[in-house]
Amino acid sequence: MRIHLVNPNTTRSMTDKIAAAARAVAAPGTQILAATSAMGPASIEGHYDDALALPGLLAAIAEAEAQGVDAHIIACFDDTGLDAARTLARAPVVGIGEAGYHMASLVAHRFSVVTTLSRSIPVIEANLLRSGLDRRCSGVRASEVAVLELEDPASDARSRISAEIGRAVREDRAEAIVLGCAGMADLARALGEEHGVPVIDGVASAVALAEGLVRIGLATSKAGAYAPPRPKAYAGRLSDFAPRG
Amino acid sequence: MRIHLVNPNTTRSMTDKIAAAARAVAAPGTQILAATSAMGPASIEGHYDDALALPGLLAAIAEAEAQGVDAHIIACFDDTGLDAARTLARAPVVGIGEAGYHMASLVAHRFSVVTTLSRSIPVIEANLLRSGLDRRCSGVRASEVAVLELEDPASDARSRISAEIGRAVREDRAEAIVLGCAGMADLARALGEEHGVPVIDGVASAVALAEGLVRIGLATSKAGAYAPPRPKAYAGRLSDFAPRG
Amino acid sequence: MRIHLVNPNTTRSMTDKIAAAARAVAAPGTQILAATSAMGPASIEGHYDDALALPGLLAAIAEAEAQGVDAHIIACFDDTGLDAARTLARAPVVGIGEAGYHMASLVAHRFSVVTTLSRSIPVIEANLLRSGLDRRCSGVRASEVAVLELEDPASDARSRISAEIGRAVREDRAEAIVLGCAGMADLARALGEEHGVPVIDGVASAVALAEGLVRIGLATSKAGAYAPPRPKAYAGRLSDFAPRG
Amino acid sequence: MRIHLVNPNTTRSMTDKIAAAARAVAAPGTQILAATSAMGPASIEGHYDDALALPGLLAAIAEAEAQGVDAHIIACFDDTGLDAARTLARAPVVGIGEAGYHMASLVAHRFSVVTTLSRSIPVIEANLLRSGLDRRCSGVRASEVAVLELEDPASDARSRISAEIGRAVREDRAEAIVLGCAGMADLARALGEEHGVPVIDGVASAVALAEGLVRIGLATSKAGAYAPPRPKAYAGRLSDFAPRG
Amino acid sequence: MRIHLVNPNTTRSMTDKIAAAARAVAAPGTQILAATSAMGPASIEGHYDDALALPGLLAAIAEAEAQGVDAHIIACFDDTGLDAARTLARAPVVGIGEAGYHMASLVAHRFSVVTTLSRSIPVIEANLLRSGLDRRCSGVRASEVAVLELEDPASDARSRISAEIGRAVREDRAEAIVLGCAGMADLARALGEEHGVPVIDGVASAVALAEGLVRIGLATSKAGAYAPPRPKAYAGRLSDFAPRG
Amino acid sequence: MRIHLVNPNTTRSMTDKIAAAARAVAAPGTQILAATSAMGPASIEGHYDDALALPGLLAAIAEAEAQGVDAHIIACFDDTGLDAARTLARAPVVGIGEAGYHMASLVAHRFSVVTTLSRSIPVIEANLLRSGLDRRCSGVRASEVAVLELEDPASDARSRISAEIGRAVREDRAEAIVLGCAGMADLARALGEEHGVPVIDGVASAVALAEGLVRIGLATSKAGAYAPPRPKAYAGRLSDFAPRG
Repeated sequence: MRIHLVNPNTTRSMTDKIAAAARAVAAPGTQILAATSAMGPASIEGHYDDALALPGLLAAIAEAEAQGVDAHIIACFDDTGLDAARTLARAPVVGIGEAGYHMASLVAHRFSVVTTLSRSIPVIEANLLRSGLDRRCSGVRASEVAVLELEDPASDARSRISAEIGRAVREDRAEAIVLGCAGMADLARALGEEHGVPVIDGVASAVALAEGLVRIGLATSKAGAYAPPRPKAYAGRLSDFAPRG
Repeated sequence: MRIHLVNPNTTRSMTDKIAAAARAVAAPGTQILAATSAMGPASIEGHYDDALALPGLLAAIAEAEAQGVDAHIIACFDDTGLDAARTLARAPVVGIGEAGYHMASLVAHRFSVVTTLSRSIPVIEANLLRSGLDRRCSGVRASEVAVLELEDPASDARSRISAEIGRAVREDRAEAIVLGCAGMADLARALGEEHGVPVIDGVASAVALAEGLVRIGLATSKAGAYAPPRPKAYAGRLSDFAPRG
Repeated sequence: MRIHLVNPNTTRSMTDKIAAAARAVAAPGTQILAATSAMGPASIEGHYDDALALPGLLAAIAEAEAQGVDAHIIACFDDTGLDAARTLARAPVVGIGEAGYHMASLVAHRFSVVTTLSRSIPVIEANLLRSGLDRRCSGVRASEVAVLELEDPASDARSRISAEIGRAVREDRAEAIVLGCAGMADLARALGEEHGVPVIDGVASAVALAEGLVRIGLATSKAGAYAPPRPKAYAGRLSDFAPRG
Repeated sequence: MRIHLVNPNTTRSMTDKIAAAARAVAAPGTQILAATSAMGPASIEGHYDDALALPGLLAAIAEAEAQGVDAHIIACFDDTGLDAARTLARAPVVGIGEAGYHMASLVAHRFSVVTTLSRSIPVIEANLLRSGLDRRCSGVRASEVAVLELEDPASDARSRISAEIGRAVREDRAEAIVLGCAGMADLARALGEEHGVPVIDGVASAVALAEGLVRIGLATSKAGAYAPPRPKAYAGRLSDFAPRG
Repeated sequence: MRIHLVNPNTTRSMTDKIAAAARAVAAPGTQILAATSAMGPASIEGHYDDALALPGLLAAIAEAEAQGVDAHIIACFDDTGLDAARTLARAPVVGIGEAGYHMASLVAHRFSVVTTLSRSIPVIEANLLRSGLDRRCSGVRASEVAVLELEDPASDARSRISAEIGRAVREDRAEAIVLGCAGMADLARALGEEHGVPVIDGVASAVALAEGLVRIGLATSKAGAYAPPRPKAYAGRLSDFAPRG
Repeated sequence: MRIHLVNPNTTRSMTDKIAAAARAVAAPGTQILAATSAMGPASIEGHYDDALALPGLLAAIAEAEAQGVDAHIIACFDDTGLDAARTLARAPVVGIGEAGYHMASLVAHRFSVVTTLSRSIPVIEANLLRSGLDRRCSGVRASEVAVLELEDPASDARSRISAEIGRAVREDRAEAIVLGCAGMADLARALGEEHGVPVIDGVASAVALAEGLVRIGLATSKAGAYAPPRPKAYAGRLSDFAPRG
């Protein structure tokens, strides 16, 4: 099975880290084809970065779809471009945010999300509402740890994330935690043991869901919301994105 | 990986059929340990059967858990006893109804459920509400095909189910269909091709989700709703069910 | 009028206490027929106890229905087996949890629930969602008083419950309180006077609702969710529960 | 027990009819004190009539409260002035619309409302939303029978109402019907037998709920939404309505 | 353009203050015709005042409508009589509460309301639910400043309101604030600068929305909820309110 | 006042038509600065076109913001890029879809949307959910008229749209209609007269709301969801979009 994992930001080192996390949980025989977007923001923080990440993401999806992959994973916790990507793909497309919410719903009655900066909260709340799983979510919390701090061994990032998880368990009565950033993947297991509740990484969740969808033969519906784009002219710098039908 | 699949009704032939469907999609290396409940109703149709299916179901869960399995699947579309089973299990527990809703949400914006008799609709609607995915559901419809008709090659069951799927696609604008009975598993692929939308079987969905949860190391949360039963005396005919702590 | 009040746990002393509370508010001419479940858990705390309480509860409902009662009350705040009991009964069936929510909605714009242990909160929240009255509920709070402490005159149970009520009034802006345990019935009036808001006991509420339903001639609907169980074989230890139609 | 039943429109013959329906179900020892509003519309159809019915209604509530009654019933299906009346009363106040929704929720999983003219539907929908029971309601339907037609033995009102109930049962899968007009009270029992589902009259429901609230000692909460009006001057024609504190 | 602004309480000095606020933002060419209700409460605090304010309000609406105005504004944050007023008017009718919620939704993802006394909170919450914008609201908070304190230069009203806004921004993550009282209009701009978020006055919002509706030619729908009152007799002191058709 | 109206598709003739509609309702002194996106799809139909329209749209917003405009209007009924545009703008940003929903909510209790092709329905439903006004919406309907047919005088587009409006009024009990395409602006008034309910054009609504927001001094909140993009590198073809801080 070939799973196309695309990092919608343009920082290759992040792609490498995420791909490693994906490969660590992939089933034998699953090949993770990791791609980094070729244009757009170096990291995705908020609606503007999200919007400008879309062309690069969609180019990657289209190319992988043409080459014939079995599934796509969008490796940003904001589920950047999920709906648009699905219009391009026959293969299933899974976002790592949504993947975390679904997996959490299967092992806990209520879950909280612990993310990086508080500016990410509105996007996550909007995604929960769209997914329908907001009713299962007991809160979205920010640890106020920036993504780059996660890379810095001298920072106290881990302890601040852990403290926020503790508050979610005590104050929200969260029964599980979804980590709200791909860069936290390596912390999930240890934090789960520390707090005695499932701590869930979206990258691993997305690999598991993508593999599962492929194995049982499910493809993205082409009726309604995810119908293929209609052929038409595109102008200017993006003219090569025009759907050809 | 060892997955315990328990049929909460006491009809062994149904277990065999469901186990075959599960094995057909299971990954190499996954062992499906199929069990039939030892006490209770021959089929589960409505709240009363559901209630009396619980002791047999929970006995099977407890026994499998003691023997050490990696996950449990409850093979009734009503998700009979899902919450209670989770209190007994460290391993993840997946219901086939809930599994279908989650998988449908990943390949379609809106899905409808097509089930057997209209008396099943209230239970399914209540489960959708509990799962949080009611907002993604465009309708729950009955084909008025009884479970046993599904076994009878001379019946027109398939054509009535297909007609109801057609109505769901046209009238609900359903983008995918979840089949609301384990006994319809063998029809999913052909009906999907006929109608041009994903037609989703809960058994296959549950196998995929259970495998995925195990592979990424997620266990049922023991904080809150699914904490282990407290030790106490149980009276009468069910005294051997008393939790020992 | 004959009202069948069934305690779904198997502790007769609790039944006696609850029956006394029921008789204290019953109208002249109302006979409270109190029954204790003959099999299952000594107390109901969480989903597992709840599931194993069902056969004993349903046996009691069936027996009383056969003898001809006018209404049934399920005397556990979790509303154990409410839906299944309704499939067996022509007479109305009222759960004490649901009764408290409905009565609170008639005397206050918003109410909070104050229950025993925090492990009870998820079940109560699920019941509020199912009843539709979650939007009227300003919070479900645990006093962390165990049921048995309520029986111990030396414990500080009453003061801890009172403190939690105070927090609900101040922090949730609760206008009324529903006491989340049958064992708190005797405290309702005094706590109400202390806090200056209605403090509502589910047992009394259920008696009032059951009497009212009977007096105006309402029976459980047999269309849809509460249709009688279909006749079929039941296997094993529970074979005598098989519906005969 | 003395229950004050106030008809918020100014048509005494309607009061007589509603009072008779109330007395027919009242418990022995319950006295129904029926009052007709002294000012305002002859019938209440829509928001404007509703608004102008309030002073007469509230005068009646204040007078009865001063004389010392045990409960109040507002006998209009629109639940005219329910919140304002509660600010004036220590005794519980029950509206016949809300009463019907609560009682229906106790005998059926889903209920539909069948009312008179379609112009009444928005008010009823708003009340269902406010009560929190909209999730239990499978539809609000108009029979297009005007209130006065209900009084005319030569009209086909009954058959049109019955036809609409039939559609609610078939198309909404309604398990019970709440009749959306006090003037339909005498039809409830026969229509229920005809359709095989509970058909619920709000007047009878309100009597039962009011009696129940009184018997268990519940009064309207004075914290929050229903706190007594603050003393202040009122100008002009309504100056005698000024709260005196 | 002629906009009829009606203060539904009977305190002319409040009308003057509100009219000044309205005129300060009105477009050139817009005439604000300010009216004070001729009967009813001197201020509106809670459901009872609200109910008794309706006849005076509706008389003012009817008179202005007869004289031919282009729009109506109801200048009470409780949106007193909004639905009833719309049945009388062809011209659009805007309430200042609802106006604030709509404008806040256009400049912020989530907004909180900061009002005067906590007894106002339930009415505001009910209005948010009715408007549909409760999902955009991150909280309704009381500063516990009474309306008259707003007029007293020696009071610390402003600092208490500011403190509550600070808590809304920090604790609710409110991105904008709607001031929950017409008497706070003059504080909006300075408080917005102090806290760095939009602080929104309902009076200004209503003027802007009313002007906009008029300019684009929208009138109140006469189908459904806001159909004109049906002609009928009104009794007693309010007989002159009878609709003539 | 200078309002920047940007057509996010790249078809200048559409911009001209929309700008004319905007100017027809703008207040004296309002200048409509119409812009056409310089890159991306010729028309926006579905999620893919929507995604690729974003860079061109955001470039136009940034340029106009730098030149100093008072408000922005995004002239696509899908509200393309509304959240991202708000992160770039101090000035308020209004989408024509959202504008129509808000205006409809002020003149009707319930409204339906009548759009072009059924493939647009999921996007509109998602936007209604996000805006919070889904509860006020009685249905989203497609006339199955393509955008270009609206330009063809020989087509029967108008009669098909009118027929769908008729169905919305009869079957949904819609009290007002929001036209779901900028290209229908010229039909609004005549269709409203034909059907006797407000028929609302989003372009006119957006002009009115933008003018109103400016006149009362409201700017886009910079706290939370719409905080300015953080400075960072952007790669590849879109590197000139990098925020500079």
